[in-house]
Amino acid sequence: MGSGPAVVPGKVVAAHPLAPLTSSEITTSTHLVKCLFPRDTNLQFKAITLHEPKKRDVIPYLAAEHASKHPPHLARKAFVLYYIKNTDKLHEAILSLSEGRVESNVRLAPEHHSSSDGEEVILIEKIVLEDERVKAEIAKLQLPPGRVVISDPWIYGTDGINDERRQFQCFLYVRDSAEADCNHYAFPIAISPIVDVQTEKVIRIDILPTGADATVREVEPYIVRQANDYIPEAQKLRTDLKPLNVVQPQGTSFRISQGGHAIDWQKWSFRLGFNQREGMVLYDVRYDSRSLFYRLSLSDMSIPYADPRHPFHKKAAFDLGDAGAGVMANNLKLGCDCLGSIHYLSAVLSNSKGEAVPFENVVCIHEQDAGIGWKHTNYRTGRAAVVRNRELVLQSIITVSNYEYILAFVFNQAGEISYEVRATGILSTQPIDDGVEVPWGTIVYPGVLAAHHQHIFSLRVDPALDGHDNRLVYEEAHAMSRDIMLNPHGTGYVVKETAVEKSGGLDFDYDQNRTFKIQNVAVRNPINGKPVAYKIQAPPFQKILADKDSFHYKRAEFADHSIYVTKYREGELFAGGKYTNQSRGGAGVRGWANRRDNVKDTDIVVWVQFGINHIPRIEDFPVMPCETIKVTLKPVNFFDKNPALDVPPSEQGFNQSTLVPGARQPTAEVTISQKGEVVCSSKL
Amino acid sequence: MGSGPAVVPGKVVAAHPLAPLTSSEITTSTHLVKCLFPRDTNLQFKAITLHEPKKRDVIPYLAAEHASKHPPHLARKAFVLYYIKNTDKLHEAILSLSEGRVESNVRLAPEHHSSSDGEEVILIEKIVLEDERVKAEIAKLQLPPGRVVISDPWIYGTDGINDERRQFQCFLYVRDSAEADCNHYAFPIAISPIVDVQTEKVIRIDILPTGADATVREVEPYIVRQANDYIPEAQKLRTDLKPLNVVQPQGTSFRISQGGHAIDWQKWSFRLGFNQREGMVLYDVRYDSRSLFYRLSLSDMSIPYADPRHPFHKKAAFDLGDAGAGVMANNLKLGCDCLGSIHYLSAVLSNSKGEAVPFENVVCIHEQDAGIGWKHTNYRTGRAAVVRNRELVLQSIITVSNYEYILAFVFNQAGEISYEVRATGILSTQPIDDGVEVPWGTIVYPGVLAAHHQHIFSLRVDPALDGHDNRLVYEEAHAMSRDIMLNPHGTGYVVKETAVEKSGGLDFDYDQNRTFKIQNVAVRNPINGKPVAYKIQAPPFQKILADKDSFHYKRAEFADHSIYVTKYREGELFAGGKYTNQSRGGAGVRGWANRRDNVKDTDIVVWVQFGINHIPRIEDFPVMPCETIKVTLKPVNFFDKNPALDVPPSEQGFNQSTLVPGARQPTAEVTISQKGEVVCSSKL
Repeated sequence: MGSGPAVVPGKVVAAHPLAPLTSSEITTSTHLVKCLFPRDTNLQFKAITLHEPKKRDVIPYLAAEHASKHPPHLARKAFVLYYIKNTDKLHEAILSLSEGRVESNVRLAPEHHSSSDGEEVILIEKIVLEDERVKAEIAKLQLPPGRVVISDPWIYGTDGINDERRQFQCFLYVRDSAEADCNHYAFPIAISPIVDVQTEKVIRIDILPTGADATVREVEPYIVRQANDYIPEAQKLRTDLKPLNVVQPQGTSFRISQGGHAIDWQKWSFRLGFNQREGMVLYDVRYDSRSLFYRLSLSDMSIPYADPRHPFHKKAAFDLGDAGAGVMANNLKLGCDCLGSIHYLSAVLSNSKGEAVPFENVVCIHEQDAGIGWKHTNYRTGRAAVVRNRELVLQSIITVSNYEYILAFVFNQAGEISYEVRATGILSTQPIDDGVEVPWGTIVYPGVLAAHHQHIFSLRVDPALDGHDNRLVYEEAHAMSRDIMLNPHGTGYVVKETAVEKSGGLDFDYDQNRTFKIQNVAVRNPINGKPVAYKIQAPPFQKILADKDSFHYKRAEFADHSIYVTKYREGELFAGGKYTNQSRGGAGVRGWANRRDNVKDTDIVVWVQFGINHIPRIEDFPVMPCETIKVTLKPVNFFDKNPALDVPPSEQGFNQSTLVPGARQPTAEVTISQKGEVVCSSKL
Repeated sequence: MGSGPAVVPGKVVAAHPLAPLTSSEITTSTHLVKCLFPRDTNLQFKAITLHEPKKRDVIPYLAAEHASKHPPHLARKAFVLYYIKNTDKLHEAILSLSEGRVESNVRLAPEHHSSSDGEEVILIEKIVLEDERVKAEIAKLQLPPGRVVISDPWIYGTDGINDERRQFQCFLYVRDSAEADCNHYAFPIAISPIVDVQTEKVIRIDILPTGADATVREVEPYIVRQANDYIPEAQKLRTDLKPLNVVQPQGTSFRISQGGHAIDWQKWSFRLGFNQREGMVLYDVRYDSRSLFYRLSLSDMSIPYADPRHPFHKKAAFDLGDAGAGVMANNLKLGCDCLGSIHYLSAVLSNSKGEAVPFENVVCIHEQDAGIGWKHTNYRTGRAAVVRNRELVLQSIITVSNYEYILAFVFNQAGEISYEVRATGILSTQPIDDGVEVPWGTIVYPGVLAAHHQHIFSLRVDPALDGHDNRLVYEEAHAMSRDIMLNPHGTGYVVKETAVEKSGGLDFDYDQNRTFKIQNVAVRNPINGKPVAYKIQAPPFQKILADKDSFHYKRAEFADHSIYVTKYREGELFAGGKYTNQSRGGAGVRGWANRRDNVKDTDIVVWVQFGINHIPRIEDFPVMPCETIKVTLKPVNFFDKNPALDVPPSEQGFNQSTLVPGARQPTAEVTISQKGEVVCSSKL
């Protein structure tokens, strides 16, 4: 036990109970935790982040805020996740920053492992490349001079075999030139060291199978091949692309206040949070002052790979829980990552020492034109009424080793909100022998296999449609039976709605046009009396292919259904569980849903899964064109008419488009036939 | 028999065998057809359009053209569809314009009916509103002064009962003010006259059911309600939307030649045709000089309605065959329908007199920014490589009475081409009694029912991937069985490919990740040896709900499968058959597929169906926000790397974005707690 120093700590009063921790709050948190230990204890901080107040406390706060009344005091709290360095002693502490005290500090059971972090990844790479046994294996490659070996430390995964301790599985590549940004993923090698994080030692070296089966053989000399780079200087670039600029001469239509965290745009208002794990979080999303969602965020993702062979069978990344969408966020550059008039939000996160670290430009906020919003022409008068569809985009980009996700919330003027994921970056590659093909991957370059893999995402939707007691229903379209009175020609069909009574997993059924809606039955549409609702539009995806007894399946607790619905409980934020790294399942949404709670007309959470089964194409290498998927939440009988009806008409005076003259319109050469005749005979 | 006058006719030499008919070619065609008849014969022309040369003749022409050799001569031909006015005598004539002669002129059996046209629709409306019996029914409404009755003539549809002759079923509405552009769809009335087109007389007046069942009752006095308009002057418009302009200071990146019909952009080249029925048609689509598609067009659409009651049970529009995407195309306005630097293509079509009629600005051609194209950041160096995704858009908008479709081909820099449909406009409405609800529609305004309906589209894809002998395959992802050697942990999965041998209808299976690809097995990827291919990404949709014995089902020959594949035959262009108006089925793709032709490694056509089951929301009224669906054709092992790799990097010097300062970043107020203390205790 140690007594803390009396420096800096204190009561922090921040602007809003949902605002991310400030720099000084992080510093205070670190101080409070360090005080728990003898002064020379080496702590490794993994996350220092806002511990959100309980929903039941935030609701009256928000109500007061929207009523312009004095809101109740809510304590600012921090959640701190840390190790005693070089041990398996992972701790969770909850701190009251308002009171400057530790509320709880719990050491977790050793099967819980925290996420990796950037500093750790760099250390692991160093450990691997300095290991003598690894060097001995690399020597067998007989690399030509100038070649450098690179190590991508991968989350170890789980197969239940000797994986109680936190480890990294490293995949090795060769860099073929002095250019530090050449693409090493084009040169995978078969040496795969495993590092124990606690001891910081290489504990095993796996040799990867490179043939058609699981056989492995001694490391062989490296085959030199041409580079396959993605950097622009390695390309003969197109020269015929003309600039396209987006300008907003009168400025943007959004307003940002409260330190960047309160955003108003086109009748929308919401709060934007940002944390280590989820990156962007939206709170208190409202349209025209009506409450829609209490909280929206990407909750989890799982990327299980198809190669069944050791050690690839363990390859299943949970990029949010294993790494963190906040801490992996790119520093976005004006004119590179975003086009037009851009506002950037920066964040403050923490490093392993518990220091506050500025993360600049992690979210870009801008408007975009998305084509026509609605149009009608009265054919009698020829008059067209048309508006464009302006959108507000909040974009954050994460790099997780080889891969990139471009994540965005998109709002439009018709009361719709979308969550868009663009998958890009570089395929995780592995070596394959010349002349070999395997059914679980695609050869994307000589000697390079890109294994198939699934990207399965879980969007957490905490609805508050005109209040917090909501229900999930699904609607289907069914053909009517033939009936001499009512359906004599077999053409009729009807819609049937079913309320979901108990928490559980559900799926789309496109053959029935099954559509999920979140409703508030206590609030009715003033015109047609239907419950106010938002529907969920999500693309189809193949559920997780790993079998039900596999760890992939057990760990990705959300990956087996398009929709999960649960009754709200504090702290249930992450569909795959709080600690996904080397997790073994049982701590996520599948389990919560199995409580079979009543979810009708109560405080519910809806988890929307979507994804891609990525069967690599050669066109996805050396860097893949974005593959875009999107979930949209759309009003259904929530408003009393088209909410975009009041958008000003699309007019040239406003839009300032430019007419591009082209070739003249078709003019045929008309000549009389040689004989000056027309063949012309009536066949009546 | 009449001898033709010796004026104007002649041999027409146009620039290209696939170019749309020119104005003088149309005039010549009309002349040639008129010559077939006595001079005073009153002909009603329905279409005068390019009769495309046979594919086997065009192929060598295009080959010569691309080789910069002198192409063979191909006769210019016209297809002319016409009635002897006020008869059921519908004729098809094929004319050789090159030779100035009629090749064939055939009178069709009387069960074939041509499309309607704008002139006819206006005439039908007039006939209805001047009919004494209709006036007598309208009188029963006891309309207040100033109210005007409007008639929307609808395609009659088919139920097999007294519908051998061509008819219109008219739906009537009340216009509530002197404003010609007020929204009459908010005031439907129960009077529905039927007009025989041949006699130009009202032959029956249906009274619409307005209750919960099929009962009809005498027309009752009109209930006056408030307007529900979409025009801007009826709205309190938003005032906080700032302009967003798209500028291309150095001009656009596309090149247009051959009278607007040959387009080059970012390694893409293709020809753009435009005709009365399909509107835009793409021919000879190539990327980097490699052939991809011989012809792409929207082939058909069917919109069957859910209300089973007479006369709504017949309501099923085929907007291409019944009206025409070309002839219904909007005249697009700069700055209203398109944003940025826009080139407009105008067309020449024909009217009922056979005159050439300019259709101005029916296609807008422009570039757009579609966010990031690809990105990767090397986390070791921090260097990001990023390109934006520039797209080329060809957009055409059609108005079919109440409804609008915004149709677009979209090309990107990664070798992908999409066909996008945005459904907008006004719901087709019908009256409903106060207090009544029905399961086949949504009340969108007091007294106004919008029946559910399906929009089912068919995109015709005539592939030519590196040649004309192609095949359709589908690929599925299957879990591997557990195997102690190869899949000991149950995580493996593989891809299996199946070639389609015979013509037929096929469906997506999202649970198997079933993906359809068009392949050329004779051409192999140089790196991985896979057949070059393009895959088809299409959204899920519910197949037609009308039962298999219904006319809706029989007529919409494409609406029961996501994919049809047929062996190429000349003239098989329209999935629902050449004559959809009051058709009874049996003349479209279902029948062609039933030939069970070999479709493996031969000249095939792939028909891609997609759609929406539109369950109206109140938010879709009085005009609906665009509902967007999209089919994408994507290269799979067609290129040898990411085709967008050579796109210049996204840089501020090029993109000229603007930094928008916001509120300052979060600064918390830090104060020492009242007691100046930190609660700090170690719990180790």
